[in-house]
Amino acid sequence: MENTLPIQRLDKAVEELHRLPGIGRKTALRLALFLLTQKEEMVENFGNTLIDFRKNIHYCRCCHNLSDTEICPICASPRRDHSQICVVSDIRDVMAIENTGIFQGLYHVLGGLINPMSGIGPSQLTIAHLTERVRNTPPQEIIMALPATPEGDTTAFYIAKQLKPTGIKLTTIAKGIAIGDDLEYTDEITLGRSLSNRTEFSI
Amino acid sequence: MENTLPIQRLDKAVEELHRLPGIGRKTALRLALFLLTQKEEMVENFGNTLIDFRKNIHYCRCCHNLSDTEICPICASPRRDHSQICVVSDIRDVMAIENTGIFQGLYHVLGGLINPMSGIGPSQLTIAHLTERVRNTPPQEIIMALPATPEGDTTAFYIAKQLKPTGIKLTTIAKGIAIGDDLEYTDEITLGRSLSNRTEFSI
Repeated sequence: MENTLPIQRLDKAVEELHRLPGIGRKTALRLALFLLTQKEEMVENFGNTLIDFRKNIHYCRCCHNLSDTEICPICASPRRDHSQICVVSDIRDVMAIENTGIFQGLYHVLGGLINPMSGIGPSQLTIAHLTERVRNTPPQEIIMALPATPEGDTTAFYIAKQLKPTGIKLTTIAKGIAIGDDLEYTDEITLGRSLSNRTEFSI
Repeated sequence: MENTLPIQRLDKAVEELHRLPGIGRKTALRLALFLLTQKEEMVENFGNTLIDFRKNIHYCRCCHNLSDTEICPICASPRRDHSQICVVSDIRDVMAIENTGIFQGLYHVLGGLINPMSGIGPSQLTIAHLTERVRNTPPQEIIMALPATPEGDTTAFYIAKQLKPTGIKLTTIAKGIAIGDDLEYTDEITLGRSLSNRTEFSI
């Protein structure tokens, strides 16, 4: 069912909600009408929270994880093992690994994977900053926790090539995770085990 | 996957998005991270449009349809047939009927259906205002276009009892729509036909 009524404010609201991924026009209309059933303050809070989120969220200066502060709590914590850096594609991968409770080191969030088909090259990721970070304060080990996909493999290979000259131990999580799977959807036991069973990265 | 990272702004954003019906925590996280990939102005526009929508949308003083103005374009139009009022539950039903292109009269949006199980009685709907409206400017016909559900039937029966003394012709859309279906999901031909084949309301 299309909205053929000339109600500009409704149209605009539906248009905005329809921008969200996975939200079709019909769902957007349902969401817009839901917002009308809510208190004015609730909708104000809803909108302003999202605006504030986009405006004031930080990417950690050290690991590029999302953070309320310039340096994220993980990088700032003296209780974390600063001799290990776990390289991941996405903040959701940080969450997935944190949920296993197995890893106590630091992270480095690439912000994606090398994917020539989508026009994403190494320069759009935080790889150069990883190299710099590692040269400035060398860790004992760098663990690649990237998806077992062609893009993940390519990215791991590229990073390994960049970091080889530093002589730092490079490992990759065990391919206990099924080929083609994303980290985000792996169950915690499998993901935890593949972190424990990580193997030397060979190029 | 739960978000176990202590990122307040992200948590808040996820919490707000999770308020929307049908949006689980995982989807809310995906939407929040999507917003981060958008320009700041886009997110500002997104939030402010929804706030403005909730704050400044009007319910038509005459028919309770959503409107940018105090009186909606349908009620204000001299090209519509002011001798017919079509009683519907919801604004989406107005859209559905407008889409058939068959009806040229006015509407009256009840804002729901009588449903004792959910604690919705006649006083929470715009039935009293409908009675008043009809007494002030009596139309030639009042068409009930309510869902063919027990709640729809109850509501139609209640309204018919209220309006019987006025002597105005009461009709109901033909039960060509399948029993148990909502108007919103009915195809336009069936809905259009059931409007054309409306029958005298009998109590």
